[in-house]
Amino acid sequence: MASPAVRYELLSVDPSGARRGRLHTPHGTVELPTFMPVGTLGTVKGVDIERLADTGAQIVLGNTYHLALRPGEEAVRSLGGLHRFSGWEGPMLTDSGGFQVFSLAHKRKVTEQGARFQSHIDGSLIDLTPERSIAIQEALGADIAMVFDEVVELPAPPEAVRSAMLRSLRWARRCVDAAKRTDDQSLFGIVQGGLDAELRAESAAGLTEIGFAGYAIGGLSVGEPPADMYRAIGFTTPHLPADRPRYLMGVGTPRDLLEGIERGVDMFDCVMPTRNGRNALAFTDTGTIRLRNACHTLDERPLDEGCPCLACRRHSRGYLRHLFRAGEMLGPMLVSVHNLTHYQRLMEAARAAIEAGHYASFKQRRLAEWGFAA
Amino acid sequence: MASPAVRYELLSVDPSGARRGRLHTPHGTVELPTFMPVGTLGTVKGVDIERLADTGAQIVLGNTYHLALRPGEEAVRSLGGLHRFSGWEGPMLTDSGGFQVFSLAHKRKVTEQGARFQSHIDGSLIDLTPERSIAIQEALGADIAMVFDEVVELPAPPEAVRSAMLRSLRWARRCVDAAKRTDDQSLFGIVQGGLDAELRAESAAGLTEIGFAGYAIGGLSVGEPPADMYRAIGFTTPHLPADRPRYLMGVGTPRDLLEGIERGVDMFDCVMPTRNGRNALAFTDTGTIRLRNACHTLDERPLDEGCPCLACRRHSRGYLRHLFRAGEMLGPMLVSVHNLTHYQRLMEAARAAIEAGHYASFKQRRLAEWGFAA
Ligand SMILES: [Zn+2]
Ligand SMILES: [Zn+2]
Repeated sequence: MASPAVRYELLSVDPSGARRGRLHTPHGTVELPTFMPVGTLGTVKGVDIERLADTGAQIVLGNTYHLALRPGEEAVRSLGGLHRFSGWEGPMLTDSGGFQVFSLAHKRKVTEQGARFQSHIDGSLIDLTPERSIAIQEALGADIAMVFDEVVELPAPPEAVRSAMLRSLRWARRCVDAAKRTDDQSLFGIVQGGLDAELRAESAAGLTEIGFAGYAIGGLSVGEPPADMYRAIGFTTPHLPADRPRYLMGVGTPRDLLEGIERGVDMFDCVMPTRNGRNALAFTDTGTIRLRNACHTLDERPLDEGCPCLACRRHSRGYLRHLFRAGEMLGPMLVSVHNLTHYQRLMEAARAAIEAGHYASFKQRRLAEWGFAA
Repeated sequence: MASPAVRYELLSVDPSGARRGRLHTPHGTVELPTFMPVGTLGTVKGVDIERLADTGAQIVLGNTYHLALRPGEEAVRSLGGLHRFSGWEGPMLTDSGGFQVFSLAHKRKVTEQGARFQSHIDGSLIDLTPERSIAIQEALGADIAMVFDEVVELPAPPEAVRSAMLRSLRWARRCVDAAKRTDDQSLFGIVQGGLDAELRAESAAGLTEIGFAGYAIGGLSVGEPPADMYRAIGFTTPHLPADRPRYLMGVGTPRDLLEGIERGVDMFDCVMPTRNGRNALAFTDTGTIRLRNACHTLDERPLDEGCPCLACRRHSRGYLRHLFRAGEMLGPMLVSVHNLTHYQRLMEAARAAIEAGHYASFKQRRLAEWGFAA
C-alpha cells in the first residue's frame, strides 16, 4: 500500500464531524463528499454520458455482477475497459457483486469458498468468489474495486451477522492477495456487522489491520428504519482511519446523504434519483413532486426554479406530466437528469457548508425545507 | 393570401430538377430541401430538444390527432402552445389528423361532414372534421397547418380514389374558410389521387385554384412499391406552382428522399430514423447496420467515421449493441440521434449538390455507396 492508485486528501472537518476532502484517482480528482450515480450496465439508465457530466457527477459506479453477465468482462476488456466501453472518462468504481448475489441471484448457496447461484438473466450456474470478483473487476478496470463480501438480510440472528462479518474479513484478505492490478486500481474494504456496534468495530479493526485505500460501510439500507441506519453509521465511522475515504454503500435519500455526511461519510451511491426519475417522482428544493398527480396538468413552472438542468431550463411540470402520461421515453430521461442534478447540487452545497464550518445549520435548514420536523 | 405567415424563396434549380430554396416562418428560416423529424406527442421519441437541435433539424412535425387525444389541444394552448409546450423554439408543422384517422382509429366512419371514429387510446367516440382539425391546429399554433384530407388505402378502385380526392378538395376549401389564425400560421394543401396521373393533376389544379402557402403530396408510401411512388411524385410536382414549397408526407428512406428531391420536393417527414433507431437499425454512409447482429459484439468502430453525433463521437458499435441486448434506454436514444443526424447530413449534402449544380451525380454516388445497383 506504499503508493495506492487512489489517494485521499482531507481538507477540513466541520464542527459537526462532516469532512471536506478530495479523492485523487488515475482518471481525475473527486471533490468529497460526493454522490456516485449508478451505471449498472455501463450506462446510467436514460442519461447519456454528456448529460451525466452536465449533472455535476464526478465519479460513476458500475455493477460487477451485471456486467459479468452482460456483456461479460472479457467483452468489456476487449472494448478498452469500462471507461472506454461506457464513454465515461472520469473516475469509476465497481462494486464486487456481493450485494447483487444477496439481492438478485436465484438459488444462492454461500460457502467459505464463495457464492454459487443462478443468473437472474438465463438461469445459468455461476460461481463468484473473492478471487473471481477481483479478476472481473480488474478486467473492467475501474479506479476503485470493492472487496467481495457476504451480506445478510436484517433482522438476522446475532450469530449469523457475526459469522458473515468474520467471513467477509477472511474474504477481504483473499481479495487483497488476489489483486494484481495495483498500479491504476485501488481496493476498498467493506465494514459489515449489521446494527451491532461491537461487530462493526471488530470489522473495522480487522479491515484496518489488512489496510485498504478506502473503507465502505456495507449491509445498511436493507430494510432497517432510517434511525437505526443513522445510528449504525455513527458508531462505525469513529473506527475508520481518518486518512482514508469512507463510502456508504447503496444510500440513499437526500436526507440519508446529509445524515451520513454529518457522521463523517465521504461517498454515496444509490439508484434512487434515476429509479424515482423513471417513475415520475422528482426531488426538489421544497420536497418531492409526483408528476402523475393531476394537479400538475396545467402547471407552467419548472420542477425547481433554481435548477440549471435541461428539464428545468426548457420544460414545465405540465409538459413533464404529459410525457409520463403518454409513455414517452423523454419523461424518464428528463426527470432522471433533474434528480441527478438535484443530488449533485445538494453535495455541492454540503461541501460549501463544510468549508464554511456551518454544516449542522445547513443540514437543519435543508431538512426543514423538505418538510421534516425540526 | 396577400402576406402569408410562411413564405417560400426559390434559390436555384439543379439541371435534374432538384430545388434549393428557403422557407421563411414566424419561428425562423428553414433551408430546403429539409427533413422534418416527427414529434408525435410533443417530443421526438427518445431525443431531447437540445440533442434534436444538434442533429441539424430545422423544423419539427407534431401530430394533431395524437395531441388532441393527449394532453388535448386546450392543455397545449394553456401551456403556451406547441412551441413552448415542447420546448422547440424553431419552426413547426402540424399534420391534420387525416392520415391517423385512416391508419390508427378504430370503427372509422367517414361522411361528407368528416370522420367519426373511436380513439385508439380509450375507445371514446371522436368527430374530426375540416373545421375541427383547423381549430385544433390553431390551438397548437404551429407555423404550418395542414388541410384535413381523406386518405384511401392503395390499391383501391379508381372511383374510390377519385371520390376521396374530390372530397379532399371540398374539405380543403372548408379548411381555408375555417382558418382564423392567419397572422402567424399558414395552411398547406394536400394533393391526393393515388397513383393516377390525371387524378393527381386534377387535385393539384383544384388546390392551386384555392391557393395555399405550400402544397403537400399525400397518400403515398402507404404500401405501394417505391418505383410507383417515385413515378407518382414525378407526375405530380409539374402541376404544382414553382413559387410554393412542396412537401412529400410520411416519406421515407434515405433513397426515397433523394428520389423525391430530384423530382422537385422540398420537405419530408418520417418516423423511420427514430423508429428504426429504437429497433437497433442504424443508417450509415455505407448502408444500414443491424446492431443486434452478433458480428458487432467486439466492434470498436463508431457507426460512422464521419458522423459528428453523440453516438459516433463517444461510443463503439460493440457498446451500442450491448445497450440493446441489455434493454437499456440509452441504445434507442443514441441510435435515434445518430439516424436523425444521418438524415440531416444527407439533406445538407443534397443542398450543397444542388447549389453546385451536380445533384444527379451526387445521387448516383450515394445510391452506389448504399449498395443500390446503378
Ligand atoms: Zn432540474
Ligand atoms: Zn452518428
